[in-house]
Amino acid sequence: MNNDIIDNLVKILKILPGIGPKSAQRIMFFLLRNKKVGVDLYKSLNDVMLNINQCTMCFNFTTKNVCDICSSQDRINCKQICVVENPADIFAIEQTGQFSGLYFVLFGCLSPIDGIRSSDINLDILENRLKKNTIKEVIIATSSTVEGEITSNYIAGICKNYNIIVSRIAYGIPVGSEIESIDFNTLSHSIIRRYKVNS
Amino acid sequence: MNNDIIDNLVKILKILPGIGPKSAQRIMFFLLRNKKVGVDLYKSLNDVMLNINQCTMCFNFTTKNVCDICSSQDRINCKQICVVENPADIFAIEQTGQFSGLYFVLFGCLSPIDGIRSSDINLDILENRLKKNTIKEVIIATSSTVEGEITSNYIAGICKNYNIIVSRIAYGIPVGSEIESIDFNTLSHSIIRRYKVNS
Repeated sequence: MNNDIIDNLVKILKILPGIGPKSAQRIMFFLLRNKKVGVDLYKSLNDVMLNINQCTMCFNFTTKNVCDICSSQDRINCKQICVVENPADIFAIEQTGQFSGLYFVLFGCLSPIDGIRSSDINLDILENRLKKNTIKEVIIATSSTVEGEITSNYIAGICKNYNIIVSRIAYGIPVGSEIESIDFNTLSHSIIRRYKVNS
Repeated sequence: MNNDIIDNLVKILKILPGIGPKSAQRIMFFLLRNKKVGVDLYKSLNDVMLNINQCTMCFNFTTKNVCDICSSQDRINCKQICVVENPADIFAIEQTGQFSGLYFVLFGCLSPIDGIRSSDINLDILENRLKKNTIKEVIIATSSTVEGEITSNYIAGICKNYNIIVSRIAYGIPVGSEIESIDFNTLSHSIIRRYKVNS
């Protein structure tokens, strides 16, 4: 476009996840053609940047000092804590309606290759919390990747020191999938971890 | 997230082209984790919304009353005008370096099904400009779709009234492609419009 202002917008849009040079250009032209959306986005970003920070208990994003989940009367004395990698995971788990305890967000996984250590992903803060002996069960909901497993093992090690029950969300075939299309590893896990059917 | 401010940002991001619910959520979490990018995007949107408007000559986006191309000393007296659907097309054509005339942006195509008429896409303004007899050739660079063709035919009709040369950018096989992978219509065109090779 030979225009610094427009080029700058495209440059910033390209930084966003999943947006390449072509998408960034398309979004830029869309915003120029639909200025109301552009103004709404501008106002919304202002709101978010000014008002959203991290919960001091679980590190999820919130407008308050302590988030709604951590300060909920139904959950505040709950003895189960679910450890996740990202706030998006809390959102996904909450939608299942199968868990009504507390959460803790790591913002990443241990990764020796990338130099990510326990203190980089709040694991020391988690340990301090577990020391206080208010938590009876830690449910580990990290990803099923090498890094997710390393992180899971690390957390299990901490829990052992404080006699806390540890559980890991189940591996297995996704609901609705056909056996023949499942990869070898997942199918192995689903056979090893088979459960008794009550008849 | 059960948070109005964050939900609102996701809602607006979903309106952008190519961004679905999952991408919107990912971008939102990215912006919360990378507040500098969020602030940069906010400032950039502000700049764009306040400073960018449409050129009064060609309707391309610009910070001025008349854009750099329309006011360029090299082009101002050019007798060729290239008609495109979108400002992005100008950007693409300029990158080829094969055209150094004027442009005119329609912002769309004629589409009887969608009720888009000539006055909706600046065609009456284009006609007024062609009436003045300063343009000798109109190069039609609309898409190779049904709507692009209808629009092209309509513009060719106007040009005929004012004795202006009309040309259409060439159809054919894309450079670097294999003949066997080309669709039937494109290959037909490339044979019909074959050109003499100087030997």
